[in-house]
Amino acid sequence: MIPLITAFALSPDQGKGLARDARVRWALEEVGQPYDVRFLSFQAMKEPAHMALHPFGQIPTYEEGDFVLFESGAILLHLAEHHAGLLPDEANARMRCIGWIFAALNTVEPPLVEYTMARLFERDKPWYEARNVMLEDRLRVRLRQLSERLGDAQWLEGEFSVGDLMMVSVLLRLRSSCILNDYPNLAGYVARGEARPAYQRAFEAQLAVFLAASKG
Amino acid sequence: MIPLITAFALSPDQGKGLARDARVRWALEEVGQPYDVRFLSFQAMKEPAHMALHPFGQIPTYEEGDFVLFESGAILLHLAEHHAGLLPDEANARMRCIGWIFAALNTVEPPLVEYTMARLFERDKPWYEARNVMLEDRLRVRLRQLSERLGDAQWLEGEFSVGDLMMVSVLLRLRSSCILNDYPNLAGYVARGEARPAYQRAFEAQLAVFLAASKG
Repeated sequence: MIPLITAFALSPDQGKGLARDARVRWALEEVGQPYDVRFLSFQAMKEPAHMALHPFGQIPTYEEGDFVLFESGAILLHLAEHHAGLLPDEANARMRCIGWIFAALNTVEPPLVEYTMARLFERDKPWYEARNVMLEDRLRVRLRQLSERLGDAQWLEGEFSVGDLMMVSVLLRLRSSCILNDYPNLAGYVARGEARPAYQRAFEAQLAVFLAASKG
Repeated sequence: MIPLITAFALSPDQGKGLARDARVRWALEEVGQPYDVRFLSFQAMKEPAHMALHPFGQIPTYEEGDFVLFESGAILLHLAEHHAGLLPDEANARMRCIGWIFAALNTVEPPLVEYTMARLFERDKPWYEARNVMLEDRLRVRLRQLSERLGDAQWLEGEFSVGDLMMVSVLLRLRSSCILNDYPNLAGYVARGEARPAYQRAFEAQLAVFLAASKG
């Protein structure tokens, strides 16, 4: 059965690959699983048909027949557990890699999203400059700790895993700032992720959707 | 082997059970797994011995001999997969419950923590009042959606699962505000979680540590 995911009909990042369907596409490409996509307008995302699949009215969702999953972390875990290639075989090593999905989503992403969202949506607020100092400090604490943990390694737990796929996907959101330049090993880590053929295919697929939609 | 977790030597919430070791204690109590605790000062959390276990210098960690895990979501998943009682047997139903761990941590917790942290740490800032309106709006969107999804159900996916354990643990952070009163079914959901004997044992255990430390 070909799984079906949802994505933005017109991605708000204009095809930069930062919407959360991109990480699911990347995982599907890594494991060689073909997939279909249902595209949703912002309005359709909040309508009952989609809210029945995703209680928070977001993308992506993942469907295999009657089985529906939401949350990109859960979808990546599901794919990694049902296909070879994104997790090691040994149980404890698998769990360590899965732990990095949680670290990416729950420890690195929140300060990173707060920082990038304030730059997008609060630049005209009187508090922007003062808060930005605080947000950047918080983000840099996490980036420094992640940089120290990664050290000279290629990936976080030996071979490339679903944990790296999620962590790189989260760090990619910093592309529009120059902040990763201060952490050369993290910049190299992200570049290694982007260089993977599966990432390239996922990126091109979502970009093609945006280009077609914005011409139409 | 008795697992070993880490927790604050002196919890910053003064024993209210909102530190992230509480959800791990709760899960351990639900499955009847005895555990040991290593208590850490704020200083010790940033020292090399702990940073080797937890790259971001936080609690909780989980150790079984040489196997080390960090991130409360990963620890809960590990416990739920290795003990009966926190996940249904059928594979798709299990994954749905696991999906709620991600929803709790990645969709509900971020706006909730932003809201509660601003109340704690930004009340004296000139931007506090104006931002608070925005943060409360964002939080209420998620609470309303979760309330609509839960409806009249006792738990999110039929029987109590690790997904409920995490969602209730996240919502408990709103106890100091009155905001949950506006969502009676969510208030009832949290109360059902708190009423579980395993939750009570976990709560008492962490409170006893705080009371002993603050007397000492």
